[in-house]
Amino acid sequence: GFIIGGEIKKSSDFIDVIYPYTDERFASVYSASESDAEDAIISSQKGFLKTKKLKSYQKRRILEKLSDLICEHKDLFVEILIKEGGKVRDLSSAEVERAVETIKISAEESVRMDGDIISLDRTIQGEDHTGLIRRFPIGTVLAITPFNYPLNLACHKIGPAIAAGNSFILKPASKTPLSALLLGHLLIKTGYPKDAVNVIPCSSKTAENMVTDDRISYLSFTGSPAVGWHLKSVAGRKKAGLELGGNAAVIVHSDADLNYAAEKITTGALANAGQVCISVQRIFAHKKIYEELLKSLKERFEKVIPGDPERSGVMLGPLISKDALKEALSKIDEAEQNGAKILCGKKFENNFLYPTLISDASIELAVSQTEIFAPAATISPYNTLEEAIEKINNSPFGLQAGIFTKDIGNIRFFYEETYAGGIIVNDIPTYRVDCMPYGGVKMSGSGREGPRYAIREMTEEKLLVINNP
Amino acid sequence: GFIIGGEIKKSSDFIDVIYPYTDERFASVYSASESDAEDAIISSQKGFLKTKKLKSYQKRRILEKLSDLICEHKDLFVEILIKEGGKVRDLSSAEVERAVETIKISAEESVRMDGDIISLDRTIQGEDHTGLIRRFPIGTVLAITPFNYPLNLACHKIGPAIAAGNSFILKPASKTPLSALLLGHLLIKTGYPKDAVNVIPCSSKTAENMVTDDRISYLSFTGSPAVGWHLKSVAGRKKAGLELGGNAAVIVHSDADLNYAAEKITTGALANAGQVCISVQRIFAHKKIYEELLKSLKERFEKVIPGDPERSGVMLGPLISKDALKEALSKIDEAEQNGAKILCGKKFENNFLYPTLISDASIELAVSQTEIFAPAATISPYNTLEEAIEKINNSPFGLQAGIFTKDIGNIRFFYEETYAGGIIVNDIPTYRVDCMPYGGVKMSGSGREGPRYAIREMTEEKLLVINNP
Amino acid sequence: GFIIGGEIKKSSDFIDVIYPYTDERFASVYSASESDAEDAIISSQKGFLKTKKLKSYQKRRILEKLSDLICEHKDLFVEILIKEGGKVRDLSSAEVERAVETIKISAEESVRMDGDIISLDRTIQGEDHTGLIRRFPIGTVLAITPFNYPLNLACHKIGPAIAAGNSFILKPASKTPLSALLLGHLLIKTGYPKDAVNVIPCSSKTAENMVTDDRISYLSFTGSPAVGWHLKSVAGRKKAGLELGGNAAVIVHSDADLNYAAEKITTGALANAGQVCISVQRIFAHKKIYEELLKSLKERFEKVIPGDPERSGVMLGPLISKDALKEALSKIDEAEQNGAKILCGKKFENNFLYPTLISDASIELAVSQTEIFAPAATISPYNTLEEAIEKINNSPFGLQAGIFTKDIGNIRFFYEETYAGGIIVNDIPTYRVDCMPYGGVKMSGSGREGPRYAIREMTEEKLLVINNP
Amino acid sequence: GFIIGGEIKKSSDFIDVIYPYTDERFASVYSASESDAEDAIISSQKGFLKTKKLKSYQKRRILEKLSDLICEHKDLFVEILIKEGGKVRDLSSAEVERAVETIKISAEESVRMDGDIISLDRTIQGEDHTGLIRRFPIGTVLAITPFNYPLNLACHKIGPAIAAGNSFILKPASKTPLSALLLGHLLIKTGYPKDAVNVIPCSSKTAENMVTDDRISYLSFTGSPAVGWHLKSVAGRKKAGLELGGNAAVIVHSDADLNYAAEKITTGALANAGQVCISVQRIFAHKKIYEELLKSLKERFEKVIPGDPERSGVMLGPLISKDALKEALSKIDEAEQNGAKILCGKKFENNFLYPTLISDASIELAVSQTEIFAPAATISPYNTLEEAIEKINNSPFGLQAGIFTKDIGNIRFFYEETYAGGIIVNDIPTYRVDCMPYGGVKMSGSGREGPRYAIREMTEEKLLVINNP
Repeated sequence: GFIIGGEIKKSSDFIDVIYPYTDERFASVYSASESDAEDAIISSQKGFLKTKKLKSYQKRRILEKLSDLICEHKDLFVEILIKEGGKVRDLSSAEVERAVETIKISAEESVRMDGDIISLDRTIQGEDHTGLIRRFPIGTVLAITPFNYPLNLACHKIGPAIAAGNSFILKPASKTPLSALLLGHLLIKTGYPKDAVNVIPCSSKTAENMVTDDRISYLSFTGSPAVGWHLKSVAGRKKAGLELGGNAAVIVHSDADLNYAAEKITTGALANAGQVCISVQRIFAHKKIYEELLKSLKERFEKVIPGDPERSGVMLGPLISKDALKEALSKIDEAEQNGAKILCGKKFENNFLYPTLISDASIELAVSQTEIFAPAATISPYNTLEEAIEKINNSPFGLQAGIFTKDIGNIRFFYEETYAGGIIVNDIPTYRVDCMPYGGVKMSGSGREGPRYAIREMTEEKLLVINNP
Repeated sequence: GFIIGGEIKKSSDFIDVIYPYTDERFASVYSASESDAEDAIISSQKGFLKTKKLKSYQKRRILEKLSDLICEHKDLFVEILIKEGGKVRDLSSAEVERAVETIKISAEESVRMDGDIISLDRTIQGEDHTGLIRRFPIGTVLAITPFNYPLNLACHKIGPAIAAGNSFILKPASKTPLSALLLGHLLIKTGYPKDAVNVIPCSSKTAENMVTDDRISYLSFTGSPAVGWHLKSVAGRKKAGLELGGNAAVIVHSDADLNYAAEKITTGALANAGQVCISVQRIFAHKKIYEELLKSLKERFEKVIPGDPERSGVMLGPLISKDALKEALSKIDEAEQNGAKILCGKKFENNFLYPTLISDASIELAVSQTEIFAPAATISPYNTLEEAIEKINNSPFGLQAGIFTKDIGNIRFFYEETYAGGIIVNDIPTYRVDCMPYGGVKMSGSGREGPRYAIREMTEEKLLVINNP
Repeated sequence: GFIIGGEIKKSSDFIDVIYPYTDERFASVYSASESDAEDAIISSQKGFLKTKKLKSYQKRRILEKLSDLICEHKDLFVEILIKEGGKVRDLSSAEVERAVETIKISAEESVRMDGDIISLDRTIQGEDHTGLIRRFPIGTVLAITPFNYPLNLACHKIGPAIAAGNSFILKPASKTPLSALLLGHLLIKTGYPKDAVNVIPCSSKTAENMVTDDRISYLSFTGSPAVGWHLKSVAGRKKAGLELGGNAAVIVHSDADLNYAAEKITTGALANAGQVCISVQRIFAHKKIYEELLKSLKERFEKVIPGDPERSGVMLGPLISKDALKEALSKIDEAEQNGAKILCGKKFENNFLYPTLISDASIELAVSQTEIFAPAATISPYNTLEEAIEKINNSPFGLQAGIFTKDIGNIRFFYEETYAGGIIVNDIPTYRVDCMPYGGVKMSGSGREGPRYAIREMTEEKLLVINNP
Repeated sequence: GFIIGGEIKKSSDFIDVIYPYTDERFASVYSASESDAEDAIISSQKGFLKTKKLKSYQKRRILEKLSDLICEHKDLFVEILIKEGGKVRDLSSAEVERAVETIKISAEESVRMDGDIISLDRTIQGEDHTGLIRRFPIGTVLAITPFNYPLNLACHKIGPAIAAGNSFILKPASKTPLSALLLGHLLIKTGYPKDAVNVIPCSSKTAENMVTDDRISYLSFTGSPAVGWHLKSVAGRKKAGLELGGNAAVIVHSDADLNYAAEKITTGALANAGQVCISVQRIFAHKKIYEELLKSLKERFEKVIPGDPERSGVMLGPLISKDALKEALSKIDEAEQNGAKILCGKKFENNFLYPTLISDASIELAVSQTEIFAPAATISPYNTLEEAIEKINNSPFGLQAGIFTKDIGNIRFFYEETYAGGIIVNDIPTYRVDCMPYGGVKMSGSGREGPRYAIREMTEEKLLVINNP
């Protein structure tokens, strides 16, 4: 059953959860109806009256308890992540560990909602007036999460929402609702006000209705750009944080350690079968080392064989669905028909796509411009850093970008000129630790996640001026 | 002529500027066409390539020069403000002085765009990684300003835009385009890149087209809620800061200094003929002092006689137009017909409305729920602070609210429970100094102005992660 | 045995630990010799090479483990605190709970040692230069702690030292070395580098030699003003944080809730038998309520009967020693001989002093000017707040001061005019939570404790300028 | 005459000001007696009662006026700087420009003395308590300044003192009192409270007496290490900021741009005849480029010919006195007698020392360990960065250190391992802009200058806790 006001509820509708490795049904969950969603909104409103009064030490305690509970249920979470998303065991295990940390970091941030005192006597009109600024919880947070990191991305919304003093409604991806429901169950045990806990798998239409509802104060959405920007346009006056897709680029400059870079890039392109917003999709190599890097990457890609997600040590699992595979293949086909070379991969079986490396892909192709969301990447040579950056910026997205170079001048130039939310030096653009600010520009989204930053977005500044004449 | 890329341009269309005191035409300005607007966008894009490279000391120098130039042209600005808005001389003079300060504060803030270094080694994955966060200019700022403070509110957009390293297009209110044009002329002399300076009076339709244009990166709008929220809904992916209206409330508690409060409230209700977003519109008085305050305010209101805006010492000038007067009168009439008492005022001549104090107005009336934007206010008694706050919160707006009380417990309670952007203690909600964060919640807008805060909104955070393995 | 480099060491010298309730020996500990101290310094230097390399997540883990271990050993700590200091059971229990939190807060702060990026291009010479500022651990911290809160005050030095990345030598008060030794034993189990753990009870002379040693980088001393300032003068180039005594004053204004104030003040004057740096020692009551407050306090003081520290519910225990009792009595006698009235108390038996309330004490008396460090306080009337503040400031000390009033004007005036490190409104000056900055001015010390602030003192800012021509 | 309480005073004693280029007397100033110093202290105490009440806008206005006045009197200041210090014209001119900026930056900082609000409810004891922290002016600042930058270093003390709300007594170097006296005269015209302005040339003994006086709240000293640390040891309870000497090192790594580095280093070693705390004194070159750099530096050093300070374009002027020359020569002689090679320079005439480059100097020599304070530097090769850093750290000083390298790994390693207050990358350690934090570790001093940082040191944090039960 789903969760409304901390209570288990049922409905007459079901969502089937399919194991992508076998395409068999693994579980069914109840799907919340319109009226369930209305109940969730009402409950969350009631819950907010309680959560906004929580003291720092209470929020810290709740979040630490939740972190501990996730840790205690690690094995169960791992099984769920493998089954609902087809995620390989090692990565599933890492995701649970990250979720534990994300909630722990939220706990640490919950006690640091400090404020500012500002001097108003900068002009004579401010004489005898003092200004104080504090942040207040915003209300009900509607969190909509995707299938690729169903647990940790839920934690990135729930954790800061609780730390900020908000109530929430969590709508997990229909393909992966189980980890979110378990998370909700654990939260109920922490002493967090029950009314404030709402986890409801539901249809897109029901979700959109909530997005337009004025009683919701904040929309936190992670998912596809098309859906995200549409939801923002119908969200009315509420604030919205959007974490959408990307086609992350990485530069390997002539002074880079090639082996190190190749190893990192292979992981960045193939982890979670490329179903990561910051998956390495576009590789730019300085012409001096282009051939060598290409060869090295090809070898590494070819060594990665898909396997049973249950088995530990397997690096590459299936895509989330047959449809996802088809879409990726059609983009690769389009590239091939337009002059690009498929250096390896393109092969597929069941829902697996073999690691695919593409060269000579022109910039207007889908593999260059759109998000592939599969274990596939393009590689291109460049003459100057300026040229490489121009190509990177020639994209509708701007989430993260990486560069391998030792030169401080290159680093500064790349940081200043590349238009993206995050710039990663000597590591892949896929790099994310949970305490850092994370988010994109252009089509890739707006706002920043990471508990400290999400708390800032999920709160409102209120000024207090005291006159003492 | 209007200004595109720092050059004076003409068109075939005109906007007449009417002196509200006489309803006679004072001047005509060219109105920018669609193609002029396109030129302005192109120019601003070109300008941004230069402004984003400006160093702190250059931005500071430009803004200090601009501040000095406004000061030097004070007399001319005062004449323009009197004529285009019907603003009385003393207030016009004060507005110019504030504009000087707003630009000066922007200069001071332009050298403080510092950044943060964050420890990423909070988890083992962050080991050897360092995070740096800096803010970068966002691009072209489209600034749309209202008639009531045509100079200082333009400065609140242009100042931070320059300080942040942005280019801009300023679209002044059609009724009051002259002060903005003069401001633009002065800016050209400061060394600020010419392409970045665009001031174009134009039609609403032309303005809306710019709002929807993807080449504009930030919309800074001050004006009516209806227009503001509509523009935000069509603004696409660009960020928008909205400073909209309000129906500001003030509480006079039983322990307040009544004379002091009455004096302040009179100014807060009548200044600029009530055409201020944070004009005192709703007065709540503790029942113990209700009658006394009512009497005191009535006397003060009655003493304020409208007069020739040119004459110094005149406190009350005309409304901006006949239409504005009619709209205010219709709300007062509606109130009277529904049981409210008109204690004084309601009288009008030419575009003047005499100070109007209304009691016994129920909460659903237009004088309670909407923004009157005229020298009129309601007064109501209350029993408990809780009750008064509930009434204040029972409004679609939430810009600023004031309270007169000495008690620290009341202050804290009022600050925590009143839903507004700013809470002013022992002063009127009309209080604003230019360095403070200013902005509202609910229908009253989103984002905060005041140079330090506007710079934050007009810039984008970019993360730099450096791995040092 | 004491602890050097995480190892248990013995010596030929002993310190006897006396139970103040019975004046009987409760335990003996080895006293470190000069050569032991030299070993501790050498070990701490070695340890620092390891602690300065600790990552945030490692420091957090060590401190959380330590916090958990203190919690697990609560009963043992309580018994020790009762016996070595004669502290009553309830307060001993509260001290252990605070120690758990102090270390927990240190853990939270250990992951927040962030830095700043500053714009250097404020002048043309700064063009192309960027400034970064980070804090680095300072080296070996020498922590000298007093007898009155032997566990929590040690935690206030050890916690931040670890969080900052420093090694340390802890020299506990000779009367109360046991809790510090147990703390050291627990720390060894956390994975903190052993060389960095040094806890050595020793003679004052040995301690002073360490203070003058250039290999020690920071002196953190809590104790008497005479010793503290002397140590600072011989500390050479090392930084020193001093938390010394006070003769804390509290004002009860005419608008205060008298019962509430009297209740709080009784606790503030008598807790830990007045052996608290911020114990209420000087009570100033507005003349309108002076008699009533005096009566109320007298009644409350008289109800507090000393008792066996072991028994829960007992509020007043013995002073630390016969000598301490004698010194307190001599000051009270001096007051009585010079015109002051002893309203209650002055009675004593064993090491107990009964709660003593003194009126009409002139300002030059020892009970007014020096620190009594016993359950005794003076009470005086005042006419105006100015007068009361002047009397409060007429003291060599300035640690904390309190006021009971509701009026925001009084609060501001008191905050601005009273010369002290902390001002407490509507609570006693004895108020301290472990996360707040704590420390005094004048004779009362220098620097601030509280983990966030102590970390700042125990680290050094280092600037990095990068030129990118 | 000198200045006490903003008034010109005379005494019976004189100090002769000698022009180092000709060794002739240029002027005489009155020397303040003990009783004058007492008057200055009394006046500064009175002044503080006024300065501490100054509003931000008043302090900003005073400092901006002072900045303008210095600018207006530039020619006069330049003449004074040339004559009292023998400083060459171009550098004198640059110093005045920097002084203008230092005071301007102080003006900007004076309006930013903001505060913090901290959450005290991190533990249950903090429930209902709010913490506010503001900074308050500390009292009278005693500023003691050296001869080498007599104007700008005075501004670095006076500017922040005014910005912080303090009064001051300025004791300039006896060799260069004129610029400080002129600065004082200008300050009197700004509206700053006259009592707060005290500029008194006096004997060291009189200065030391003031240092020990309890009415002085802060000692800001720039000068020699021996004097500085001695003064700190007799300063009693007052805070002291010490900016002392150094023997700044710079590394030229194998990947550096040698011409650029050599050019910068020549300036860094010879500017102001090496009489700069952060003058380049120790050059470490990677063995691969050692010979080439040595040759390049030798050529550059030899081209720099001392000349008449009055003439513009002259780079090298005389040392401050014959004694200073003798001391520098004796260190160079000692080096030569102990195996070092004098590659160029060592020649002298009048008070000039020709640029002196020394190789093969062992580490224990005075040219390596002490501060030369003359246009002389040593050069040594190194094999690894570790080795070079070890040599740099093998010095009693730690002010600033520089490195020329492009490699981000080297930069990070150098920043982390070099023990100094500031690390300068791709520029000389002599780099200082007036807005940056500046100060050293070890013998080089304590505390940081630069207006933002000096204000922090010249103020005291005061906590306000408000309980709202």
